[in-house]
Amino acid sequence: MTNDAVTLAGPLADRRAWRTDRCPIGKALEVVGTRSAMLIMREAYYGTTRFDDFATRVGISEAVAAARLRELTDEGLLERQPYQEAGQRTRYEYRLTEKGTDLAPVVLGLFEWGGKYASPGGRPPVTLTHAECGTPVHVTVRCERDHHVALPEVVVSAARR
Amino acid sequence: MTNDAVTLAGPLADRRAWRTDRCPIGKALEVVGTRSAMLIMREAYYGTTRFDDFATRVGISEAVAAARLRELTDEGLLERQPYQEAGQRTRYEYRLTEKGTDLAPVVLGLFEWGGKYASPGGRPPVTLTHAECGTPVHVTVRCERDHHVALPEVVVSAARR
Repeated sequence: MTNDAVTLAGPLADRRAWRTDRCPIGKALEVVGTRSAMLIMREAYYGTTRFDDFATRVGISEAVAAARLRELTDEGLLERQPYQEAGQRTRYEYRLTEKGTDLAPVVLGLFEWGGKYASPGGRPPVTLTHAECGTPVHVTVRCERDHHVALPEVVVSAARR
Repeated sequence: MTNDAVTLAGPLADRRAWRTDRCPIGKALEVVGTRSAMLIMREAYYGTTRFDDFATRVGISEAVAAARLRELTDEGLLERQPYQEAGQRTRYEYRLTEKGTDLAPVVLGLFEWGGKYASPGGRPPVTLTHAECGTPVHVTVRCERDHHVALPEVVVSAARR
């Protein structure tokens, strides 16, 4: 066990004695565990709503875009709404739901990590700031008393059922 | 554009005028954009270090585990260290680096989202608490003045080069 690991409490301490098949991380990744799904969510956060824009900006085929948008709609991260431009047939756009918006810390966390480790010179091409005060935005791990929580300070316990 | 989207500032406001190929989110997903890579990182956070344990606990074949561990080692999220048990040949274990540890907010964010939306009754089977004070742990988006930042309050700007 590394010193950097979380603390596995009580019956979880012996990793060989429990299985991970109900792990919320694994469950989440069943929904957004592909690169294209995450990038579609990024685009939704950027304000993209239309099918063609998702496919073009994510850089995926129309078939892949259609499959991913269907999955994300079926799972309730996006919802499909009709719109009509003058003289055109009815089309659909994809809008964020609360469930979709709630994934933002994950995608912003990828932004922060990618900006630090996968950008030339560690300088990402875009920056994220807070509209109200102009200071940079970060994704942080906090407890409900608002302490910063490093990984070794995280205790994983079996929930009381 | 939805009301839930971030604010694209200045030259970024017209999404059709810029491309996303240097986006840090996309760059990050080139490294950890597979379900198995994310789950291997989860296991590393849980303290797993040995090849067989990664494969078994993630539920992937040895071939996939070997490929992912090699990628994560090549990319510097894990590092391979030799160990030897009495009477056995030298083997290798995988330990977290700072780069690997820095991805924790993303994986903990998936835990929180999956716990809320993909667990029976919205109750995840395990809970995360802070060792020091015992209160639940959350992944939050904050600015450097420590304001909570909702998605519509995030301003995306081109970085000064």
